[in-house]
Amino acid sequence: MAPTSPRTMPGVLELLPRDQIAFQSMLDGIRRGFELYGFLPVETPAIEYADVLLTKTGGETERQVYFVQSTGALEQGEKPELALRFDLTVPLARYVAEHEHELVFPFRRYQMQRVYRGERAQRGRFREFYQCDIDVIGKDSLSVRFDAEIPAVIHAVFTMLAIGAFTIQVNNRKLMRGFFESLGIADDERQTLVLREVDKLDKRGAEAVRATLTGEAFGLLPDTAQRIMQFVQVRSTSLADARTKLAALGAGGDLFEQGRAELLEVLETVAALGVPESAFALNLSIARGLDYYTGTVYETTLNDHPQIGSICSGGRYDNLAGQYTKSKLPGVGISIGLTRLFWQLREAGLLRDAAGGIDVLVTQMDAAAWPQCLAIARELREAGIATELALEPGKLGKQLKYADRVGARFAVVLGEDEAARGVVAVKDLRSGEQHEWPRAALVTHLRGVLSGNGARS
Amino acid sequence: MAPTSPRTMPGVLELLPRDQIAFQSMLDGIRRGFELYGFLPVETPAIEYADVLLTKTGGETERQVYFVQSTGALEQGEKPELALRFDLTVPLARYVAEHEHELVFPFRRYQMQRVYRGERAQRGRFREFYQCDIDVIGKDSLSVRFDAEIPAVIHAVFTMLAIGAFTIQVNNRKLMRGFFESLGIADDERQTLVLREVDKLDKRGAEAVRATLTGEAFGLLPDTAQRIMQFVQVRSTSLADARTKLAALGAGGDLFEQGRAELLEVLETVAALGVPESAFALNLSIARGLDYYTGTVYETTLNDHPQIGSICSGGRYDNLAGQYTKSKLPGVGISIGLTRLFWQLREAGLLRDAAGGIDVLVTQMDAAAWPQCLAIARELREAGIATELALEPGKLGKQLKYADRVGARFAVVLGEDEAARGVVAVKDLRSGEQHEWPRAALVTHLRGVLSGNGARS
Repeated sequence: MAPTSPRTMPGVLELLPRDQIAFQSMLDGIRRGFELYGFLPVETPAIEYADVLLTKTGGETERQVYFVQSTGALEQGEKPELALRFDLTVPLARYVAEHEHELVFPFRRYQMQRVYRGERAQRGRFREFYQCDIDVIGKDSLSVRFDAEIPAVIHAVFTMLAIGAFTIQVNNRKLMRGFFESLGIADDERQTLVLREVDKLDKRGAEAVRATLTGEAFGLLPDTAQRIMQFVQVRSTSLADARTKLAALGAGGDLFEQGRAELLEVLETVAALGVPESAFALNLSIARGLDYYTGTVYETTLNDHPQIGSICSGGRYDNLAGQYTKSKLPGVGISIGLTRLFWQLREAGLLRDAAGGIDVLVTQMDAAAWPQCLAIARELREAGIATELALEPGKLGKQLKYADRVGARFAVVLGEDEAARGVVAVKDLRSGEQHEWPRAALVTHLRGVLSGNGARS
Repeated sequence: MAPTSPRTMPGVLELLPRDQIAFQSMLDGIRRGFELYGFLPVETPAIEYADVLLTKTGGETERQVYFVQSTGALEQGEKPELALRFDLTVPLARYVAEHEHELVFPFRRYQMQRVYRGERAQRGRFREFYQCDIDVIGKDSLSVRFDAEIPAVIHAVFTMLAIGAFTIQVNNRKLMRGFFESLGIADDERQTLVLREVDKLDKRGAEAVRATLTGEAFGLLPDTAQRIMQFVQVRSTSLADARTKLAALGAGGDLFEQGRAELLEVLETVAALGVPESAFALNLSIARGLDYYTGTVYETTLNDHPQIGSICSGGRYDNLAGQYTKSKLPGVGISIGLTRLFWQLREAGLLRDAAGGIDVLVTQMDAAAWPQCLAIARELREAGIATELALEPGKLGKQLKYADRVGARFAVVLGEDEAARGVVAVKDLRSGEQHEWPRAALVTHLRGVLSGNGARS
């Protein structure tokens, strides 16, 4: 029988072990950041009932859903009643509504799982990808201070990931809506179209955008177009600057003033929570999904790599789970699309050199040293050091080459000569240097250098 | 519109946060054990091409497959070309065949992901569950010493999980096949049927089983039935006992002798790798899937809870990926079905008390203390302590109740009185005790008690 070609579908990111280690260490860093702020883990099934998943969505999202059928259901030609989740927000809404009486509110959960979208195959578009989400869900109400805690978590996470300087950009949908309404653009859809146009400022230039806004499609007065363009270009360079610029917006209606007050409180509290002023800014162009978010909105960008776009976005919403429960559940949250971020960092050559595969390979040159090799491997593992033991004697050169290829940080060499002198040779596979250590000091020595060098333990 | 009922399909294990933390800490422990032995992580997509997944399998397995279709494919009425993985072994075979030239052999990988089976809904049967697998794949050949390393990893993992005493039971398919062939039962299928009958010894008693084996269905001579029943009842109580019992089996054919030699080497090496003799045993009744495994086979049972059955099984196979590549890839591996194990431990009341949700809740009694509360939360987080900060002032009793419900280990209380005296009150939510600490010593104190008490960090 001709062999089947081993292959994966387009739109998945399958990694070789060394990249997988780098990916895993990003997952770990994100989780550590979430846990430091007291978020609790939740995992939900990848497969949900289709009618539960698709209550709210329509159009584009629905077209991207993967439906699931067991062999039996398929044979009976039934309409699929199961589907794969396409995000973590709908499952969260279902989870909170289903377990409402067992949960404690405000409910602070993190969730890091894969989601599935039947996207058209395209470079950099993924059909299966990790989302790493946090959300705080209140019952009936949720203080705006929770909106301020989110940037502190974002800051903790990306500081841990160490992928370069970043800025958390904050805006408020109430302020934005109040502003547009004062200009007579009250309709959400129309606001979206205007914002989409204004978003092209960098690409098309101010003149072209102004021409479009005052042209047939939008029919805005030149003064209105001018005010919109000024508004969305507001960015702060410090907390004091943000205060000044918010004050300089002039008076507005109730919604506008409410948005301004919220934004100010959020920015003040973000600073009070210890986020350095260089890491967050007011940015009045941030809109996110206009139909979903109702208050604070966030985007996060890498200062030196703006072309990557937002690496962490989210905001405040009024009611999480109206499709499942009559309880009012306001919330605030963010999402990191880790698969895409990892792929982009790798493409841009920005992945930190992975700590490697394992800490130590204990080589075995001849069978006589086997008991000693066994003892060394055991001691290293007892000390929490990730250790592979060569199970059969062989040529040292070949074993060192293997150690290098699996990404071992150190190789331990115990030849006849070393054994006689009570020492062990340790080769640093990164620098190529080799040193001898007294056998008795080996574990302490390796633990010392590894703990200063990104050991996995 | 009437709300949609929020629900999940039968056969999934969705956990509340505190159980999820316990589950996560088991996943972490297993991973740590795998990494200590130098295994490298791999993750594969949940969705694979159906023709790639279903090359080998048929019958029962195929009937349990979940097929996947995007909205577009479904509308066109196509036969599904995608499916969800039903184990991690087929994806491993595909992965190794696909990336053969980029991998280093022996290839040591661990993989901990969910798999999907369209099982009939039944208590304790899962349609989505975690498997935690390790495998070592050789190119052309793989020393039997790798078979001996696997029980050492199993031992490390279950020692870390601390779910009670366990025994890793080892057998060898060559020894078994050689034995059956010497009795004239050469056919694999007939061996399976005999073994299945013998497996009922405990339930039906020796007389009933003997009657079946010598009856019409099998037609074995009484002496043959007797020898089979004696053979499969062989268990060792120590390494020396295993040596004696293996020797006492008498001489056999080539296959039998090869199996005996392998089994002996495996058991000797398991002991040399530091696994205590109480944790592993020879057990000549262990068969596993007769069509798949070809040498060493393992099962692991909890000494005090044999009814749970094997919690970790596997063995040696001749060729991993014959359906995808002409390369010969022998391997050895094991799998832990963590979802089922977790469920069984919980049912049996054997889950260790989870470390709780978060380490510390910093309460806030009145707004005047807010700057102090912020400072404390910041210091705790900088020290790696998972901390939730009450973002708004409120009644202490309510905040302590909340802390207890989210599983916080400690609550920090900073009233006006404490602040004036430069102290902080720390309430231990497990014991209910409350003590005062100098404000300056708070972080050191909490770090100290938490590191001795299963802090997450």
